[in-house]
Amino acid sequence: MNNTQLIQEKLAQATAILDELNVDAWLTFVRETSLQPDPALELIADIDVTWKTAFIVSRSGRHVCIIGHFDAENARNLGLYQVIDYHQGISQPLREALAKLDPAQIAINYSENDVAADGLSLGMYRSLQVMLAGTPYADRLISAEKIIAALRGRKSQAEIERVRQAVATTETLFDEVEEFVRPGMTQREIAEFVHGRIDSLGLGYAWPKPFNPIVTCGPESASGHAAPGDVALQKGHTLHMDLGVRQNDYCSDIQRMWYVLDDGETAAPPEVQRAFEVVLGAIKAGEAALRPGVPGWQVDAAARAHIVENGYPEYMHAFGHLLGRVAHDGATVLGPRWERYAGICDLPVEVGNIFTLELHVIVPERGMMSLEEDVLVTADGVEYLSEPQTSLRYIQGY
Amino acid sequence: MNNTQLIQEKLAQATAILDELNVDAWLTFVRETSLQPDPALELIADIDVTWKTAFIVSRSGRHVCIIGHFDAENARNLGLYQVIDYHQGISQPLREALAKLDPAQIAINYSENDVAADGLSLGMYRSLQVMLAGTPYADRLISAEKIIAALRGRKSQAEIERVRQAVATTETLFDEVEEFVRPGMTQREIAEFVHGRIDSLGLGYAWPKPFNPIVTCGPESASGHAAPGDVALQKGHTLHMDLGVRQNDYCSDIQRMWYVLDDGETAAPPEVQRAFEVVLGAIKAGEAALRPGVPGWQVDAAARAHIVENGYPEYMHAFGHLLGRVAHDGATVLGPRWERYAGICDLPVEVGNIFTLELHVIVPERGMMSLEEDVLVTADGVEYLSEPQTSLRYIQGY
Repeated sequence: MNNTQLIQEKLAQATAILDELNVDAWLTFVRETSLQPDPALELIADIDVTWKTAFIVSRSGRHVCIIGHFDAENARNLGLYQVIDYHQGISQPLREALAKLDPAQIAINYSENDVAADGLSLGMYRSLQVMLAGTPYADRLISAEKIIAALRGRKSQAEIERVRQAVATTETLFDEVEEFVRPGMTQREIAEFVHGRIDSLGLGYAWPKPFNPIVTCGPESASGHAAPGDVALQKGHTLHMDLGVRQNDYCSDIQRMWYVLDDGETAAPPEVQRAFEVVLGAIKAGEAALRPGVPGWQVDAAARAHIVENGYPEYMHAFGHLLGRVAHDGATVLGPRWERYAGICDLPVEVGNIFTLELHVIVPERGMMSLEEDVLVTADGVEYLSEPQTSLRYIQGY
Repeated sequence: MNNTQLIQEKLAQATAILDELNVDAWLTFVRETSLQPDPALELIADIDVTWKTAFIVSRSGRHVCIIGHFDAENARNLGLYQVIDYHQGISQPLREALAKLDPAQIAINYSENDVAADGLSLGMYRSLQVMLAGTPYADRLISAEKIIAALRGRKSQAEIERVRQAVATTETLFDEVEEFVRPGMTQREIAEFVHGRIDSLGLGYAWPKPFNPIVTCGPESASGHAAPGDVALQKGHTLHMDLGVRQNDYCSDIQRMWYVLDDGETAAPPEVQRAFEVVLGAIKAGEAALRPGVPGWQVDAAARAHIVENGYPEYMHAFGHLLGRVAHDGATVLGPRWERYAGICDLPVEVGNIFTLELHVIVPERGMMSLEEDVLVTADGVEYLSEPQTSLRYIQGY
């Protein structure tokens, strides 16, 4: 399926979601999108625009795009919108188009909680208010967050297939890393090897390259989103990698764990083994709680409880996030009810969501123990898109 | 000069601009910047963040960054901010930091007219209002558009040098194009040649690759920001290319013109020659008007008048825009006083601004005639960063 077909599929889905949510029109209002992209735009039109542009998706299925003259050809080529172009300014054609459509509500892209539904800038909102002043539509603006959460979160078959490809590529890269890595290599050397492979394959990065992959070598490495540094991998330490590629516009996000055998060892010491088992157990506990209709925080709570019950401190992040066009794909988070996840961890899991399941513990003097899987929510449970890591992987000490 | 030094230089410049504009604090408030970047952030910190983050640039020179725990290492590595990290939520540390600073005004990133100063989303603004409710700071928010326009527009020596490099690279690419092109080649083939060169040189694109370069072959090609298509270059037609590369984070944006000699011709026919001369004359007229302190629209008016006086229809776009980290670098536009350029064409030209100068006319049955130069505004006039095109270039018809 090519990009235009994929967008056509998403636009049909958007029309159905407007009907489901009883909203007449959804307005994505953008300008200079290469400088200031709206994350919602790529779901309904894969073009960039220069001047102020209104993409109006309508419950009736009659979609309109009001666009600057020199950008209009690209919008016409999509074949998905009635294109109205302008030279001097958008305000008059926008008012006319709205009057013709006469929507009872106009959903616009803002959300306090969901970054993927928050593409409308404050300046563009103020500009929209000026343009609509004196029309009935100024008072009909509502948040599009529910529309965007559903549209972005419910992956179509074509989208699922693309994530599946990105995941498969990532698993191959992990195998290559395992072949490549030797004790004494630094985080930076390991990351550079992965960069070389990703770049030569012509792939993109699921999050910015300086922190992708995250490589953690033993107890001295920082945890979190830090750039790989000069810490070298040592025998008796863990090696952790968090890697996501972007392939055909869709992403993977997977963490894998290795242990570097020390002299005379044939397996990791008990405290490393146990940490792995507890982390794996927490992922399984979260997986068991991940069902359509369940609020995100309940899934996190199941995994978190398993960690705490086993005597480890709880992880200070969310158990999972949606995955799609970017690694953190907006909307529902499988996270605790902290301020930082307000609103988005109360949203319900839906069929077609692709989530990461991830968490870590620290093994003193050994290093990070952290796993992350990518899973699809189905009507009756969970399908792993990644081949889950169910045992520790090893790197020889010589 | 490396990136950290460049940002250090811009941050010192920002401190001075706050003092000049009599503003105590400038707040850049962001989250998930790889999904929703704020164009101002790259000027003051070249990192991405996940959770809500406040970069507070202070008139006193004591800058503060309040950031999620797992992102904090990257902010600390910058060495330019006092870094305060948080686990559960930003609201309390943000209120505390503001109380300590006690600014009389807090500039935030919104602007109806300048996209580069409009990085604050409506949702993030609403979230900020909730966090500041009940503090004296809720009523002290002002627009940072003047700060950002000055900071982004007044290029430092290091920034000018980077643009100069991108321009030099682009001129080399135009020479290579001239060697490569033959009649019969399509716009797409020509664009693909340029893509191959840019990609193999490891360069980026000043605007999105599908429309960069823009290649116009003869009278049948669309003008504007359309993707190169299947129109083939023919003898007796013009070839126009609009190309911008991104090198070391800074951009070029240049247009060049060729004519394909027809059988028996040794020069372009008079109407093609005349169109070139008039377009060149308009660029010279604009250049003469481009002086510090002059509002942008006056520069456009000088070029526009030259076109109209010579009997051609006026171009339906602006004569020039700022150039820097992106092709359309925000703030001052050398454009007509149309709704589309409201506010930004009234801003004054400043020393250190880098502008494009560009316009086109159409030659019936021959094609587009369009030039674009990149120039630096100095205290007493204009310095060309590109080697200006002062005569038509030729492609042999055999």
